[in-house]
Amino acid sequence: MSDTLTNQKAYRAINFAEKLALFDDQWQARVVAEMNDYQFKVVRIEGDFVWHQHADTDETFIVLDGQLRIDMRDGFVTLSAGEMFVVPKGTEHKPFAEREVKLLLVEPRGVRNTGEETSERTAVNDLWI
Amino acid sequence: MSDTLTNQKAYRAINFAEKLALFDDQWQARVVAEMNDYQFKVVRIEGDFVWHQHADTDETFIVLDGQLRIDMRDGFVTLSAGEMFVVPKGTEHKPFAEREVKLLLVEPRGVRNTGEETSERTAVNDLWI
Repeated sequence: MSDTLTNQKAYRAINFAEKLALFDDQWQARVVAEMNDYQFKVVRIEGDFVWHQHADTDETFIVLDGQLRIDMRDGFVTLSAGEMFVVPKGTEHKPFAEREVKLLLVEPRGVRNTGEETSERTAVNDLWI
Repeated sequence: MSDTLTNQKAYRAINFAEKLALFDDQWQARVVAEMNDYQFKVVRIEGDFVWHQHADTDETFIVLDGQLRIDMRDGFVTLSAGEMFVVPKGTEHKPFAEREVKLLLVEPRGVRNTGEETSERTAVNDLWI
C-alpha cells in the first residue's frame, strides 16, 4: 500500500474485533502481534479452564468483551471489558467464564496455555492470525 | 478485603477508565501494572509528540478512546479504540492526536518516553497510579 504522490506507506493497525471475527472456536489463542519476545494473543473462552501455573512468568489478561473470573487458591478476581489483571508467576489459577468472553493475553513467546499441565485444553502454540 | 465465611480474597481488576479519571494532564503516562519487567501505562495525549526512537525495544500502543496517528519516516498508521500497533525498535516515530486520545502503552520498565531525545515532552518515569 503506498500513496504515489508522497510515497508514504499506510501501515495497518491491529483491530482486536476484526481478528476475533476471523474464528469462532474457543480456547485456542491466536497471536496478533509481537513486542520484543512477548506476544499479544486474542482468544474466546467459555466455561472452566484447568488449574495451572506458569513457574517462570507472569501472565496478563485484558478483557475485550464479556466477563472473566480468575480463581486463585486464596481468592479470585472478576474482570469486565476495559479491565486487566496480572497473575503473578508461580500462582495457581483457573480462568472461568459463564458466557463467552473475548480476551487479549500478553505473555512471553513460547508459554504453554496450561502451564506445566497437559489437558484437553492445551492449545497449539504460536498460531498467528 | 476478605469473605469471612470462605476466607477468600477479592482481588481487584485494573480498570483503565477509572485510572484515567484520576488525572487530566496530558503526556504524563502513569503505570497501572507490571508483568515481569514490562509495564502497562495509561496516558492522555493531544497534539504533536517529538520525533524519537527507542534503540533497544519495541513499543506498543493500544488505543482505549479516541484516535491516534503515528508517523514514521516512511509512512504512518492510524489507530482507533480497540486497535494496537507495535513500533519496532530503532524506528523513528512521532505520535499525534488531533483531539485527546487515551492510550495504554506497554514497554519495558525504565524506557524514557522521548527515547534518546530530551524535550519538554520528556516525562517522569515509573509514576504509578
